[in-house]
Amino acid sequence: MKRPTIADIARRAGVSKGAVSYALNGQPGVSDATRRRIMAIADEIGFSPSSAARALSGASARAVGLALCRPARTLGIEPFFMELISGVEAELSARSFALTLQVVADPDAEIAVYRRWWGERRVDGVLLCDLRADDRRIPVLEQLQLPAVVIGGPDGTGALPGVWSDEAAALAETVEYLVALGHRRVARVGGLPELQHTRVRTDAFRSVCARLGLSSSDTVTSDYTGEDGARATRRLLSAARRPTAVIYDNDVMAIAGLSVAQEMGLTVPGDVSVVAWDDSPLCRLVRPPLTALSRDIPEYGGQAARLLLDAVSGVRVAGVRTGTAHLTPRGSTAPPRNP
Amino acid sequence: MKRPTIADIARRAGVSKGAVSYALNGQPGVSDATRRRIMAIADEIGFSPSSAARALSGASARAVGLALCRPARTLGIEPFFMELISGVEAELSARSFALTLQVVADPDAEIAVYRRWWGERRVDGVLLCDLRADDRRIPVLEQLQLPAVVIGGPDGTGALPGVWSDEAAALAETVEYLVALGHRRVARVGGLPELQHTRVRTDAFRSVCARLGLSSSDTVTSDYTGEDGARATRRLLSAARRPTAVIYDNDVMAIAGLSVAQEMGLTVPGDVSVVAWDDSPLCRLVRPPLTALSRDIPEYGGQAARLLLDAVSGVRVAGVRTGTAHLTPRGSTAPPRNP
Repeated sequence: MKRPTIADIARRAGVSKGAVSYALNGQPGVSDATRRRIMAIADEIGFSPSSAARALSGASARAVGLALCRPARTLGIEPFFMELISGVEAELSARSFALTLQVVADPDAEIAVYRRWWGERRVDGVLLCDLRADDRRIPVLEQLQLPAVVIGGPDGTGALPGVWSDEAAALAETVEYLVALGHRRVARVGGLPELQHTRVRTDAFRSVCARLGLSSSDTVTSDYTGEDGARATRRLLSAARRPTAVIYDNDVMAIAGLSVAQEMGLTVPGDVSVVAWDDSPLCRLVRPPLTALSRDIPEYGGQAARLLLDAVSGVRVAGVRTGTAHLTPRGSTAPPRNP
Repeated sequence: MKRPTIADIARRAGVSKGAVSYALNGQPGVSDATRRRIMAIADEIGFSPSSAARALSGASARAVGLALCRPARTLGIEPFFMELISGVEAELSARSFALTLQVVADPDAEIAVYRRWWGERRVDGVLLCDLRADDRRIPVLEQLQLPAVVIGGPDGTGALPGVWSDEAAALAETVEYLVALGHRRVARVGGLPELQHTRVRTDAFRSVCARLGLSSSDTVTSDYTGEDGARATRRLLSAARRPTAVIYDNDVMAIAGLSVAQEMGLTVPGDVSVVAWDDSPLCRLVRPPLTALSRDIPEYGGQAARLLLDAVSGVRVAGVRTGTAHLTPRGSTAPPRNP
């Protein structure tokens, strides 16, 4: 069974291909009876106009692009992206849009992908992840006039709308809670230092620690992998005056940190409290279960997708602040045994 | 900056749009000098023929489809899919193919997606995941003549080529190792019972246990989530004569099993040994680190993608057996304290 074409319909209906085209496109030139007969045949043999034909006629590609510039191995282990994608997908499929995904090696490759996608009309718009400080991708997207929504912000998105959450508020809530438990030495294992939201969190951590009169506000940055999280934790817990609480920028590193504490003969939460960012189900699977900053990541992706579809349809959209992550205390945080 | 069109080139070159089209498509009708001038202008203003135009002219969509029929939340937590996708992506991007991803609610929705993708020429071929027993999708894809590669097999793929690994050999290696350590009561927490590879593993587990003279060969099935893995583990470890070793069909459930053992006051590996399938970095992050069945999942995805691109290019392809998963012993397996 080949894909049915206009010629197949024409043959079955005993009319010209032109007549079929008139009928299917609602143009004059065929009688109502013929139009109905042609529509019925098209339906019967499963004809649908090719996306190519519709795109040429100025209709949309009905696809949205997402280029991810992360090492493949990191993507595999981080629940964040797959949860984000599932939220994006849910919104797109409800509107019959596809998601075109591409893993790229570096920002130059990513920019080349945007140029190609837009030049070839493969996508109607893109979602931009991992916003960097002075992000080179922003002016390119602005210049291309390719509809785009940044997952991140509100600063550094240029003229593009961003979907962002209040990182500083979440971090303040966490540090205030730890201080209320009696912690005075709190450290943080942050994500990639070149990412905008890592900088926002690092600045916020420094300022909330200063406000609460804590002597130190050390952030060790990492590449988000468990291996790097483990290394950072070993370094922090080997210090002469080690922290009594560590906040991690993702859940995988927090789980690694939990294991390092065990490996060093320290108990969690007695000797060291552990807080994870991004509360995936993994946080509830380990022992003790991890106190985490929870937010609805699929909904975050869904919101970005809705905004992008609005932009694609020509609506002028503004950035949106999504729900702030909130602290879900579990067994990995408690008052410190030796404050 | 609008996307450059043939009209823009024609205006700059001072020729007709037809002449530009002849020049760009290598057809006669323009002089060599004009052709060179037109090509240079096209290059200068960043013109690329739209994918729509190329698709209409019979060229390929340069995209491959992957529809996943799994609850979004499961996708978020299972490293397997993202690792598979990253391997597929690496192969596709090297050949300038995009990956079109769609999460679907059920097999009917998945079939509808295949019909639409192929009817609208959005993809040149598809990768089929989660092969089921008597899979309804297979005859549909055969009938559509949509190039497709099944990630699974070798049985039940109909006329479609499959990329598969020897599940029975991996399971035999694992059970033989546990028996060599002195285990006599080995249980298994399997994946979704309707999936073909779950059935293959369940049958293989039963036959290897019988061959080695073990009294029982219980498999409890699950939906791959940590929650379900924890429930299954509680049930197994609450039995009067509980197993001394449990094999899990993925890593997330094995981590959940580790936590349930701790929660029930049992030590791993002294009271119960734990083996995970799919050795993601998570297995090395928990304590004790998990003994696991390791294989290169990105390479598995890459192999499927290569096979599909061959099929798309019209080569007649046969199924391929990929590398068998091998046991990587770590701290979660040992001789049983009370055999």
